[in-house]
Amino acid sequence: MTRPIITLTTDFGLKDSYAAEMKAVILSISPNVVIVDVSHEIEKFNIRMGAYVLASAAPYFPKGTVHVAIVDPGVGTRRRPIVILTNRSIYVGPDNGILSLVAAKEGIEQIRQITNKKLMMPRISNTFHGRDIFAPVAAHLSKGIPLSQVGPKIERIQMPSFAKPAKFKNGLLGEIIDIDDFGNIVTDIRAEMIKPIAKTGIVTIMLGKTKTKLTLCNAYAEALKNETIGIIGSHDFLEIAVNQGNASKVLTAHIGNKVKVYLR
Amino acid sequence: MTRPIITLTTDFGLKDSYAAEMKAVILSISPNVVIVDVSHEIEKFNIRMGAYVLASAAPYFPKGTVHVAIVDPGVGTRRRPIVILTNRSIYVGPDNGILSLVAAKEGIEQIRQITNKKLMMPRISNTFHGRDIFAPVAAHLSKGIPLSQVGPKIERIQMPSFAKPAKFKNGLLGEIIDIDDFGNIVTDIRAEMIKPIAKTGIVTIMLGKTKTKLTLCNAYAEALKNETIGIIGSHDFLEIAVNQGNASKVLTAHIGNKVKVYLR
Amino acid sequence: MTRPIITLTTDFGLKDSYAAEMKAVILSISPNVVIVDVSHEIEKFNIRMGAYVLASAAPYFPKGTVHVAIVDPGVGTRRRPIVILTNRSIYVGPDNGILSLVAAKEGIEQIRQITNKKLMMPRISNTFHGRDIFAPVAAHLSKGIPLSQVGPKIERIQMPSFAKPAKFKNGLLGEIIDIDDFGNIVTDIRAEMIKPIAKTGIVTIMLGKTKTKLTLCNAYAEALKNETIGIIGSHDFLEIAVNQGNASKVLTAHIGNKVKVYLR
Repeated sequence: MTRPIITLTTDFGLKDSYAAEMKAVILSISPNVVIVDVSHEIEKFNIRMGAYVLASAAPYFPKGTVHVAIVDPGVGTRRRPIVILTNRSIYVGPDNGILSLVAAKEGIEQIRQITNKKLMMPRISNTFHGRDIFAPVAAHLSKGIPLSQVGPKIERIQMPSFAKPAKFKNGLLGEIIDIDDFGNIVTDIRAEMIKPIAKTGIVTIMLGKTKTKLTLCNAYAEALKNETIGIIGSHDFLEIAVNQGNASKVLTAHIGNKVKVYLR
Repeated sequence: MTRPIITLTTDFGLKDSYAAEMKAVILSISPNVVIVDVSHEIEKFNIRMGAYVLASAAPYFPKGTVHVAIVDPGVGTRRRPIVILTNRSIYVGPDNGILSLVAAKEGIEQIRQITNKKLMMPRISNTFHGRDIFAPVAAHLSKGIPLSQVGPKIERIQMPSFAKPAKFKNGLLGEIIDIDDFGNIVTDIRAEMIKPIAKTGIVTIMLGKTKTKLTLCNAYAEALKNETIGIIGSHDFLEIAVNQGNASKVLTAHIGNKVKVYLR
Repeated sequence: MTRPIITLTTDFGLKDSYAAEMKAVILSISPNVVIVDVSHEIEKFNIRMGAYVLASAAPYFPKGTVHVAIVDPGVGTRRRPIVILTNRSIYVGPDNGILSLVAAKEGIEQIRQITNKKLMMPRISNTFHGRDIFAPVAAHLSKGIPLSQVGPKIERIQMPSFAKPAKFKNGLLGEIIDIDDFGNIVTDIRAEMIKPIAKTGIVTIMLGKTKTKLTLCNAYAEALKNETIGIIGSHDFLEIAVNQGNASKVLTAHIGNKVKVYLR
């Protein structure tokens, strides 16, 4: 029998016991579960980065995996705790957009607001719903309780305003959705959107007030050391990278910055 | 049958192989164990923070969990390796105070000095008892060996000098026991100690030479963005926080600093 | 029945989903495997440090463990993906030296180039062979497929140019192979090489242009606080350490720097 899987994506960091408290609660309820950390190093309060990292990881997990994602500056206020069922996974977290990027991509089948106190910790703090609400609900779901026990169906959730590049006369206006640990700048412009220019091998971008022509490479090491290039990353988004260097430092780029790509 | 759990709390960091070597030793002896990292990012040599983080996480794990905690500037000298049995868990580590905060809270039932070389690695380094003594002893304990095999009973262990706020004329003198990854300042002043002022909604504190009145909020997001507030954290200690900001940087606070709380 | 173990050693960092994507792929193929992170914080592109950290951890894992190690600046170019079988473990990664330090030490029995596309992800990116090639191959190997299925035998692999101290008139010329999270400076000079001076209790070293006499201690805490000492670390290499301090900062040392040790 296959063991159920629960993944965790948070901005809690790794020095404190927060992630471990969630795991302790999960293992107390669902002792055979396999827990996988997606990341606890999401930029603090950066829902956009959390949504992107979760959407990058989730498709590679087996069907039926329960994904918990918590970047939750509104914890303890009226934002709703929710569960989303898609056609391959279950998502658990706050209704602030962190779950909806990946859920919309997979196809949302059902959304429930979490209201059933029997699935929560007996005492609920105002500051740590990860431990007191989301972890125990995820643990119960990993054991196969019916979704209807979680709480009432709801129809609408917060949808992300990001990850939707706009067209302009000469190209596309997107934004930076992630800067990875190598300093690679990940934009929300998908590979198929820039197909027209892929053949030319050159991509012209504007970041801040600087317009730059970049060679579109197939591998980092095709470039010279320290050369800035364009590349289609492993999640099919356009990335700006520096071979064996840190592009975000070289170009002083931040998550949320706008990026123009000229299609001719 | 439920799998046994071993947790790890250390100041080893995550870039080296130290934590993995402990896990390798544990899995070699006790292959069915579930290993959970509480933290490997305890501030180097900061026994106080290690004790606090362990005491925060341990109560959420199932009964019978074996917790290993190692912040051990005295490794290789005469400080004793010990095992403590409480009424819910087993603690393994050096006798320097890191285990005793949580053990005293749970109720100490038995203490043993680790002397049985059969439970250790065949060759014991002077610099890494985590791998050579504590990990294998924890692994054997997770398999259910009787505590008496570990070594002789002892009666006294190092008790922490911290986490005991004192009273003064107008209030309480405590100290900072943790600064979490968000920069939240965790004091050792427990919620029930400040009940008299909780109704007023205002807490007056002195940190360094600065006396400040803070609104006591129920949730971070009740405050304005970047407002400094008081809040009861998820472990029932008084915290000083900055909504969506970093309180320890704003107030230049460090673990060990004194904090006065005025009760009128 | 014992569960198979797969370990991961990479320079991917912990904020992104890269390590989690590898784990997702592994668990999809080999659901009963235990995955252990050795480190994802290898210095970016530092093959030498990756080789050292892997070689430190691997001997403590049970026989038959599958170790994946990826520090791979050449990903997507012609460097070969390989599998090495030694007399105790299986190693999976790029042929750039990261696997060969530990493999040579254990005794290489067979080397295979990875060519069998059936063992890889259906779509292979140019930038993330960790997820698309190495993780699925390791997962299949953990399930016991014969090594011959991986691809053709090869005879020669990249051998590391480091970790081979040279002799000179008065001593040994080695180099720094690791700086651990405490700032301890790990040289590639093994304990048995400096046996002649071990009795004197003093080791004279040259780092950069500075020649220093250091007391050779058995434990960090034998030294005064902040004293710089020599010590044989837990992997039997000569380390330069500062008791309760950070030697690499005090001595501004970096991985790859040369270190002379005077044997008289």
